[in-house]
Amino acid sequence: MPTLRLALAQVNPTVGDLSGNAAIVREWSRAAADSGAQLVAFPEMMLTGYPVEDLVFRESFVAASVAALERLAADLAADGLGDLPVVVGYLDADGPARISAEAEPDRGPRDALALLHGGRVAVKYYKHHLPNYGVFDEDRYFVPGDFLAVVRMAGVDVALTVCEDIWQAGGPFAIARQARVGLVVNINGSPYELDKDDVRLPLVARRAREAGAPVAYVNMVGGQDELVFDGDSMLVAADGTLLARSPQFGEHLLIHDLDLPAADPDAPEGDLGEMSVRRLVIDPVPAAPASPLDGGVADRVTDEAEVWQALVLGLRDYVRKNGFRSVVLGLSGGIDSSVVAAIAVDALGPDRVVGVSMPSQHSSEHSRDDAADLAKRTGLDYRIEPIQPMVDAFLSNMSLSGLAVENLQARVRGVILMALSNQEGHLVLTTGNKSELAVGYSTLYGDSVGGFNPLKDVPKTMVWTLARWRDAEAERRGAEPPIPENAISKPPSAELRPGQLDTDSLPDYNELDAILAGYVDGDKGRDDLIAEGHDATVVDKVLRMVDVAEYKRRQSAPGTKISIKAFGRDRRLPITNRWREPSDR
Amino acid sequence: MPTLRLALAQVNPTVGDLSGNAAIVREWSRAAADSGAQLVAFPEMMLTGYPVEDLVFRESFVAASVAALERLAADLAADGLGDLPVVVGYLDADGPARISAEAEPDRGPRDALALLHGGRVAVKYYKHHLPNYGVFDEDRYFVPGDFLAVVRMAGVDVALTVCEDIWQAGGPFAIARQARVGLVVNINGSPYELDKDDVRLPLVARRAREAGAPVAYVNMVGGQDELVFDGDSMLVAADGTLLARSPQFGEHLLIHDLDLPAADPDAPEGDLGEMSVRRLVIDPVPAAPASPLDGGVADRVTDEAEVWQALVLGLRDYVRKNGFRSVVLGLSGGIDSSVVAAIAVDALGPDRVVGVSMPSQHSSEHSRDDAADLAKRTGLDYRIEPIQPMVDAFLSNMSLSGLAVENLQARVRGVILMALSNQEGHLVLTTGNKSELAVGYSTLYGDSVGGFNPLKDVPKTMVWTLARWRDAEAERRGAEPPIPENAISKPPSAELRPGQLDTDSLPDYNELDAILAGYVDGDKGRDDLIAEGHDATVVDKVLRMVDVAEYKRRQSAPGTKISIKAFGRDRRLPITNRWREPSDR
Repeated sequence: MPTLRLALAQVNPTVGDLSGNAAIVREWSRAAADSGAQLVAFPEMMLTGYPVEDLVFRESFVAASVAALERLAADLAADGLGDLPVVVGYLDADGPARISAEAEPDRGPRDALALLHGGRVAVKYYKHHLPNYGVFDEDRYFVPGDFLAVVRMAGVDVALTVCEDIWQAGGPFAIARQARVGLVVNINGSPYELDKDDVRLPLVARRAREAGAPVAYVNMVGGQDELVFDGDSMLVAADGTLLARSPQFGEHLLIHDLDLPAADPDAPEGDLGEMSVRRLVIDPVPAAPASPLDGGVADRVTDEAEVWQALVLGLRDYVRKNGFRSVVLGLSGGIDSSVVAAIAVDALGPDRVVGVSMPSQHSSEHSRDDAADLAKRTGLDYRIEPIQPMVDAFLSNMSLSGLAVENLQARVRGVILMALSNQEGHLVLTTGNKSELAVGYSTLYGDSVGGFNPLKDVPKTMVWTLARWRDAEAERRGAEPPIPENAISKPPSAELRPGQLDTDSLPDYNELDAILAGYVDGDKGRDDLIAEGHDATVVDKVLRMVDVAEYKRRQSAPGTKISIKAFGRDRRLPITNRWREPSDR
Repeated sequence: MPTLRLALAQVNPTVGDLSGNAAIVREWSRAAADSGAQLVAFPEMMLTGYPVEDLVFRESFVAASVAALERLAADLAADGLGDLPVVVGYLDADGPARISAEAEPDRGPRDALALLHGGRVAVKYYKHHLPNYGVFDEDRYFVPGDFLAVVRMAGVDVALTVCEDIWQAGGPFAIARQARVGLVVNINGSPYELDKDDVRLPLVARRAREAGAPVAYVNMVGGQDELVFDGDSMLVAADGTLLARSPQFGEHLLIHDLDLPAADPDAPEGDLGEMSVRRLVIDPVPAAPASPLDGGVADRVTDEAEVWQALVLGLRDYVRKNGFRSVVLGLSGGIDSSVVAAIAVDALGPDRVVGVSMPSQHSSEHSRDDAADLAKRTGLDYRIEPIQPMVDAFLSNMSLSGLAVENLQARVRGVILMALSNQEGHLVLTTGNKSELAVGYSTLYGDSVGGFNPLKDVPKTMVWTLARWRDAEAERRGAEPPIPENAISKPPSAELRPGQLDTDSLPDYNELDAILAGYVDGDKGRDDLIAEGHDATVVDKVLRMVDVAEYKRRQSAPGTKISIKAFGRDRRLPITNRWREPSDR
């Protein structure tokens, strides 16, 4: 039985940075070769980054992707890596996109994979199953491939597949079994969702059994706008046993030796019904590595640690990949801005985080103290900018009352943060949590101002859980807990009028978050929620608030997605919409 | 040859307003019956409004749509209209949506049509061709239908189809020919685009020839968020001749008598290959109307009139359907705010439009004069709110310079408009044109503040053209031209620093708009644009500005779409993106 030393390169490409991404492939291919790997696999759309969305429609971008691929093949050979088969995702097209008048039915842009070998593009494969749900729009962009690529290397037949191919039964994995391959490689751009790692392993195991072959699953890592890719690359045996696994949220080269069946010289090729099989032989002779190597199985972390790492990585990459050096945020002394500050300091370090306390006449003494305490604990760059002079300038020139005055204070704070951003170059962070966003409990162009919001997809109750977890984690490591206990335990308030509390306007957050999980994430209706035991009056109130807040959500900053239905990319609703869950049927 | 009196109801439904939309069907069916019509057709998704986007995933919404349909059938009969066949679009489902774990391959939500007759839902049809490009996402939502519904009424076989069915060759229209139908009804939710009416007639004519039968094309009218439906309903003979046509941008009942071939008793049903045919007979006997009736062909209007009407209707419906009564906007005396004010006054009347002049120390005398002149000409509610006291309050408390001070002035204006909105209940209108939006020539949370932007998809050069057209139109009718000549002819300036002109930062607008049309609407690359004769330095500068302005566009207000690629729904790009058109290949 031949042994194949596999390298799975869990790396962090940047959308559109073709030369930077190619440089990553060359660097990590060198490392794989230095470890004696006989095959190295990089993620889906490695060369272009993922997802590239409507850049697919730009012919100059497609041409640049293909040119970068060919240049990469030559550069790898020039690096002395021509003998190492390198599997890499990229954007290709064999015809105009569907939006063109010249579009042909079975040709167009492709979510493609190439195997680079001997200085050339040896094999191409086009993703067969295209996801078109949640954050995915691939029916809009791509034409599905209709053949499976099988490459014989070191005496083993290896099938090459892309991402969604593994999420659906039938297609490439079923054909791989018919083609009697010894291994299936699956390259991914699979975004993080809470508990998705718990789904991924059983899925890969199921598909390994369907193919009757081990599966090498490699995923990208890093943030891209609202998505964060968590890695979690793995090797699974034909019977579904986990053999090796990378950690989440970090770059990692997983190297592992696999004993694989020798290629069957009589295995079929050509048309196999649903798809055809295209074969290429680059190396028919098994060549066992010198000494066996085991990639190991990385420890799983708790849900809280997983979410925290997702938020830290999502923010760090948004800042870095958009060319910012630092961030600024308002510090109210409350739980949301405290947690965002702690995430920002973990992501960027304290010297790249500016926290501004902007007290008004309604700000309590404890709020100011809590903000200062957080600043001291984290070591961030702390400023104080009282807002009353600016608020008074508006009040003395306009006739304002009630809500208009409350919102005015939040908007003056927004203007101050944006002025600091313009003056000093920081990215402004927004700090509203998912529960607030859901019900519209925020001021448009006020506390919603900002370029990125780490808590956009984090419900309020989870904000508290994360705060307690982060402080406990600090204690465990003997470090100072970043978030003041008082910021966690005090009742939340916007402090825009005397004695104001969130509970004046909203139900208890435990109940609110449970209703939101059903209505927003679960698409449940009013009757379902009441049947689950929620009070009808509260359900009606929350549903109305969510329905009318769509416009505010549309105007909100991007933020890392961690749930099934984050606001933003994967939830599309009309703003103008008279539909309300019926309460009188 | 039997004669059929057809009624095409070009009406304006509201998304989610099931009972209001049903009331429209009852009212217009009554009018059709009063005119002796033997068949009345309403637009696609008439009962729910269109598009309903992710409401499709809410089972309670689907159930409400189906219940409303059945209630409508009964109500029509109770109204004494049970004998009149009524064709109406609605949302149906014969299985869970694709996002559900229980999803089945060929079942799910349907973009459906029903024929109501005798108090019952007599026939259903499910849209076969699903558009998934531009503003359309229907592969995300719907399962395509696989049968054609053919109904015999007044001795004629009538095939029933929905929208995209007419935009693609093959499918329902090809099957209609095989089924030897006498007429094809096609109900639509077809959004306006400049010159789309010029495309529509040849398309309907082509499909009529493909079916070998006349086509009755009915489209909705009205605004829905960024879309505006223009109507343009029509009847086209089997040879492609236009028989009758409704005007654009207004509700209209088109009633027309058609001589049609008698139904062929031997016409096939059941499986016809690509689709099957389901037949229903509700009235086999021809019944000619008493005296012939011709719907007439409405006059076409100029491109300028078409765009103006689209912008007026888009704004009016956004305000009305979202429950606002009035709007407020800043009046700088410049061309953009002047044109938006004129659109708003045409849409809502002068007493529902508040215009606020917010001069700073950099505002020229002529700007203040032009704003006042526009207010006088249009009769809108005019206010003056100097911004210097508020700007000074920020400047005396913070250390700001350069761009931060320029932006501060725009942001203070945004705070004033939002305060007026909160205090008095107006919707804030944004006034930045498409050219500005494209290159990011605006202040985030400053002049970009607002709930709706009529010029979002209108390039600057078209803003001038529209202004001149609107003034000439007023002169032609003997009314006062709303837009001061000086606002049209003076060089544009943001007036945020002394002597500032747009041309300090931007190329001439004629050149800018030509480059933007190629890069944004046409997805052309740098080399294509230079080959068209544009200067390479200018192309590079404009392309860089467009590439980095994505975040600002993401934060901008909705606005009526009039072009192939409006910013917003039909253009999706990553914010984090390092790709720049290569300038050194």
